[in-house]
Order: sequence, then structure tokens, then C-alpha cells
Amino acid sequence: MLIVVQKYGGTSLADADKIINVAHRISSAKIDGLNVVAVVSAMGDSTDELIRLAHTVSSSPDERELDLLLSTGELVSSTLLTMALKTLGYEAISLSGSQAGIRTDTMYGRARIDSIDTARVKKEMENGRIVVVAGFQGITDNQDITTLGRGGSDTTAVALAAALEAERCEIYTDVDGIYTADPKIVPEARKLAEIGFQEMLELASYGAKMHPRSVELGAAFNVPIYVASSFGDAPGTIIHEEPDGSQMENRIKVTGIALNTNVAKITVRSVPDQPGVAAALFEPLAKVGISVDTIVQNTGSDHTTDISFTVSRTDLLKAESEVKLVMDELGTDSGTDSIVTDSTLASVSVVGSGMQNTPGYASRMFRVLADGQINIDMITTSEIRISCIIREDQGEEAVRLLHRDFQLDKGE
Amino acid sequence: MLIVVQKYGGTSLADADKIINVAHRISSAKIDGLNVVAVVSAMGDSTDELIRLAHTVSSSPDERELDLLLSTGELVSSTLLTMALKTLGYEAISLSGSQAGIRTDTMYGRARIDSIDTARVKKEMENGRIVVVAGFQGITDNQDITTLGRGGSDTTAVALAAALEAERCEIYTDVDGIYTADPKIVPEARKLAEIGFQEMLELASYGAKMHPRSVELGAAFNVPIYVASSFGDAPGTIIHEEPDGSQMENRIKVTGIALNTNVAKITVRSVPDQPGVAAALFEPLAKVGISVDTIVQNTGSDHTTDISFTVSRTDLLKAESEVKLVMDELGTDSGTDSIVTDSTLASVSVVGSGMQNTPGYASRMFRVLADGQINIDMITTSEIRISCIIREDQGEEAVRLLHRDFQLDKGE
Repeated sequence: MLIVVQKYGGTSLADADKIINVAHRISSAKIDGLNVVAVVSAMGDSTDELIRLAHTVSSSPDERELDLLLSTGELVSSTLLTMALKTLGYEAISLSGSQAGIRTDTMYGRARIDSIDTARVKKEMENGRIVVVAGFQGITDNQDITTLGRGGSDTTAVALAAALEAERCEIYTDVDGIYTADPKIVPEARKLAEIGFQEMLELASYGAKMHPRSVELGAAFNVPIYVASSFGDAPGTIIHEEPDGSQMENRIKVTGIALNTNVAKITVRSVPDQPGVAAALFEPLAKVGISVDTIVQNTGSDHTTDISFTVSRTDLLKAESEVKLVMDELGTDSGTDSIVTDSTLASVSVVGSGMQNTPGYASRMFRVLADGQINIDMITTSEIRISCIIREDQGEEAVRLLHRDFQLDKGE
Repeated sequence: MLIVVQKYGGTSLADADKIINVAHRISSAKIDGLNVVAVVSAMGDSTDELIRLAHTVSSSPDERELDLLLSTGELVSSTLLTMALKTLGYEAISLSGSQAGIRTDTMYGRARIDSIDTARVKKEMENGRIVVVAGFQGITDNQDITTLGRGGSDTTAVALAAALEAERCEIYTDVDGIYTADPKIVPEARKLAEIGFQEMLELASYGAKMHPRSVELGAAFNVPIYVASSFGDAPGTIIHEEPDGSQMENRIKVTGIALNTNVAKITVRSVPDQPGVAAALFEPLAKVGISVDTIVQNTGSDHTTDISFTVSRTDLLKAESEVKLVMDELGTDSGTDSIVTDSTLASVSVVGSGMQNTPGYASRMFRVLADGQINIDMITTSEIRISCIIREDQGEEAVRLLHRDFQLDKGE
């Protein structure tokens, strides 16, 4: 039984015509002899509309109630899509997250999937039905409805594909694949036919249009993910296991350039230069769920040190107040000068599994930026990525310069 | 543990202000020391909106999918009301029909409640929470969502009150109680402080604003039902067990006058006057779910008979085509003359448990109508009701004449 999981986003389901279009796409996979499980997001901006509605009755809506409320958006789109499929003459059935056996923890608004009981989905497939699953939601052991947070429907789709041992997970969206850089910034950017999980993860974390969570899940369970547009038939990008070494030699070393403008920097000045200070600073941030990215420490001459780190801009205010609390506890002066924030930054990243164990990429990147009169504020690297924190207003220019210098328009 | 179940209809929850108003009403019952279970309908006309949406993707939406779609309307209102309650500082939790343990059969669109597992509702009440239940919906043994059809949320409320052994079920709506006649027709109509289940059932079946289903359920489990407005504090009407004989002697004999304008008559002419014809005619109607009300048979002189009966106007077309099929099978000419329909009729009813075993009410009713130049087309009676089928355009006048003659404005 060949199974494919197809995920359709909100813009692909925004009105009746688009829903009927998606029904036609699903039916053609069915005609090809595949067992199709479709995972859907809520129609258009209906999730935002429900959030707005919640705020008309409460300034801070209860999070359990909000999750149950938001889960209705995907129920609406999944039932409408199923009606459309049946009207086209196909056997189909919609399942809520709960009916599809998607069990989560109890973290409302950002639940994680614990397990999937695929019995019902399999039974419906065995009866020849196309199964349409409401994405973004699950149920706790206590029968309470949860939502999965950002990238939730993609996560549902990849997790279901893993649990069903599907051939692949297809993500249909309003972009038609993964590019060497954002085509809005670099017109000559090239669509990639394939990309490795780790490369995609680095690109996704640093600005490309895919939530890292589903990519991580795909990597963990080795589920190939195909990203393509739901509006046309142009071939998309397959995200899969890194090709082995022999192929790697033939590949261009850099896969893509990513830009992330959701970057804020916090600098804490004149921290005592003693063991445990970094832990005291970052542990409380981790506890309240703030991800810290690049960290740089400069030790001065007077037994104090400056620590700078970046967080996403949406976390800046919360991070700043946490840092103030820590500084007060350490007995350090947390006056106006000692904590400095900057929200005018961006990170530009060069990503490619071909860079592993190959020297010279970092220095080449720094040279390109220097020649473009772009100052580097901070640097961070992984095995397959080099990121530089630069001024936001120079971000797009940096992407263009790097894309040209690494000849990413030249093809694989 | 004194429990009260309060049901709020769609007009009482049509926008944020109205939802907050309902939250205040519920909280004052809570302050009075009662354990409150609130059952809600969907906001305003949102159910119609969802039906309209379904018809944008399918001319005849699949009924299982439609039920799952429609069930979201009550999830939205129940979560919003719960958020409003929590914002006022009360512990509250919303439960879907499924979470509230409401088990139904599999008749999508008009499911009947098989049983209610009250464990979750009771647990939440024991934790001091106001429980807000999404009305109109339940779940089958196969974990599929069903809706209960017309009057569904009232049914949920009365059934929950029965299962929880609540003190009473309070139905808050846009009318403020049960009147001796429709106040729009009879300005001097009087609100009843109380009415018996059987009387209410007859009134509800013949035109008053309450679905008979929940009244039947209240009668079966002896759950007093209080009907009042959600917008003011005027006392409403309590529907409860008939008072015993001693009280009955002191009560006025007629309780109310009902008008039903959803009446159509079908006359089948020259049917063979032989055993089994009536069964052959009415069995197929019952099979397709059409309720037949008044039936009159006139035997002619030529071994044939005319049969007339009434159905609701919404069922007329379906009933007519069923009758044609039967006539064809019987080998009777089903030409243009043999089946005659009339959609210009209404039924006017005099209802009162005091009429039992007391002669003279029927003849008095016929005399009042005759004096008003109102022709009677058909007559039907129960122990506590007399109904006459008359011309629709004389319906309101008939109600006024009967209300005056039986002195219903004079008080109990």
C-alpha cells in the first residue's frame, strides 16, 4: 500500500474555488494509485479571525479555551475539502486531530506530538477512502484539545507520514520550492531540485520559508519532504537524506544563502569575569522559553567582561527584563548603560553540506562582505553554516553579493 | 450539590457584549451557591453561515462532514463564553459534546442521545468549575461527531439536567416565557407562571416557541424546565409535572391557544375502499420520516373513498411524490384530479389539561369559530387539545376570538 501524505496550507484553501482545486489535485494522486492522506490548515486568515474574536471577550484568553477555539478552523477546512472530494465522486472522510489519533502533551498553544495511533486512518484507507486530517491539533490523555503552534500543520503532516511509513510527505504551499536565496531579493536565484535535511534545517532556521520543526521530524524519521506550489504544476524541491560522499564531490559546495531579519542583540556590560556568570545569565532565559542564538564574550582588562547575544525580536522585551533580574541578583549595577539592546540587525548565512571539512568558505564570505563595505558585528558557525550578524539595511545587498560570488545561479 | 443547567440560545450569544452579559448571568447563579452547567448554541446565525459555506463546495454536502462542520459553531461559542467567565474571575471550562460524554446514535443531522457519561462534567464541578457544554452535538461509538437537529441544544440541556439529576433546566432565549397565546397576535395574552409538561407538549407541537423534543425529555425524566429571557430579569414560565387533582379543580380549564401555519393538506380522491389502503398510503411516508398529523377519510357511494391528511409544508413535495408512487402501485389513476394539495391552511388549537373528561370545550370552540365566519376544514383532538384546520388568513383572528371567549386574559 503506497501512501503519500499531502499538506495544504491556508492560502491554498482560502475560498470554495481553491478548495475545489485542491480536491482535483488530491484526486489525481488517487488516480495514480496512491493512498492519499491530506492534512489541511485553516482557510485563509481564519485562525487570525478566531484569535481576534477571542480578544473581544477577554484581553488574555485562557490558553486551553483558545486551543479548543482555534482547532475549529481546521475542522472547517477539512470537512469542506471532504465534501468537495465526495462531490467529485471520490470516497473520502475527514478526521479531527483527535480522531486521527494524534496524541500530544498538555502544553497548550505549542503542544508536541507524543504518539500517533494510526488505526482509524489505516482503517479508512483500507476502505478505499481519501483521509482528510485537520492539521495543527491533537488531544491529550485527558481528552483536551491542543494546538501545535507555529508550523503546526506541517508538523502534523510529517509526523503522520512517519507513523504511516508513507513514501513521502508533500507540502503544498504558496511558494513553489526551496531557492538558493529569496527570489524577491535575488532575481537570478535558482530553485533547488533537492536539498539535504541538515542544509534545509540551517536554511529554515535562518530565514527560508519552512518551519524547522517539521524538517527535524523528517530528518529524525527519514521521511522525504517534497515542497511545491498548490497553484501550478512546476516541479518543487525534495528534502531528503544527505547524498553520500561520492555524490558530494560532484556537488557545488554552497547550497543557499539565508537572511533572517528577526534578530535583536542584547549586550550586557561590565559583568564580573568569574565562573558561572554565563550560566546565571542564560539559564533563566532558557527557563522562560527564549532561544539564544549567537553569543560573544569580550573580556576587558579590569576583571569584568561584556557579553553580547542575539534573540528573536519578538522575545526582546521579555529577555531584557530577565537579564535585569539576573544583574540585580548578581549585585551588578543594571543602570541605563549596563544593558544595551539593538533591533536594527539581521543575520546572513551561507549554508551547504559541501562546506564540511573544506577550509576557505568563512574567509571568502568575510572578504565578500568587506568588499561590499558591510561591517560584521558578530559571527557564528555550524558544520554546514556560517552566519554573520550585520546591519539590517545591508542585509539584502549582502545576500545578492554572496549569491553572485558563490555562483549559485550556475546550477548543480 | 445543587446543580442547575442553563441553556443559552444563539441570539443570546450573538456578539461579544451579549456573551459577556451571559457570563454575568451565569456568575450570579454561581454566587447563589449553585453548581452551574451552561449549554450553548452557536453564535447568532453562524450555523446558517456554515451551511451556506458547505453549499459553496457541494450542492448536496455529505451529512457526516456537515455534522462535523456544524459542530464547530457551538465550540466557538462555548470557548468564548468560558474565556469571558475566566476574565470575570470565575473558574470555568468548556467541553465539547464529546468531552461532556454525550453519546448518540449514527443518524447524522438528527441524532438521538443514547446515553450521557457524566464523569467529566462531575469532576469539573467538584473542582469548583462552571462547566460550559457545546450544545447540539454528540459522538457515536465510532468516535464520529453528530448533531441533534432542530431544538438540539435544548435537548442537550434537558438530557444533561436529567443525567446530572439537576434541580432544574433553565432555557434562556429571546422570548420571556410561555404565553396563553402569541402576544404578537393577541396583545392581552398573559404569561403563564407554570404549565404542565403535557400541555406544553401540545402547545409546542401546535405552534408555541419550544421544540417538543426537549419537553418530552423533561416529562420522561421529570426535569422541571424554566423558560425565560436572557436579556431581562422578568420571571419566566416553569414547565413541570401536572399539578394533582385538588389543585386542578381550582385552575382555569384552558391553558393556551396555539397557531401553526406550517400546515399543508393532501387529498387523495377515489381510493379503493378496501382494507389495507390506509396502511399502504401511510407506511411509506413514515419510512421517509414524514410526520402525518390530522387524517380524515370520507367514504363515498361507489366503493371508493377520499383520504385527506396534513403534513408540514416543508414535507409537502416529498409527501406528494411518495403518494403518487403508492397510487401507481395500487393501479389507481394518479392523474391531475386524483391528488390535490393545499398550502393555504393553518391549525388553531385550544390546549388545557383541565379539559380532560370535561365535556363542552369542543362544541364551544366550534361555536366561536362559526360566529366568526371561520370555516372548519378538519378536526383533530387529543385528551387535552382540540385542533381545527382552517384557512391560514383567518388563523390570527381565530386565535383572538378563542382567547377572548375562553377568558385567558383573566389570570389563573
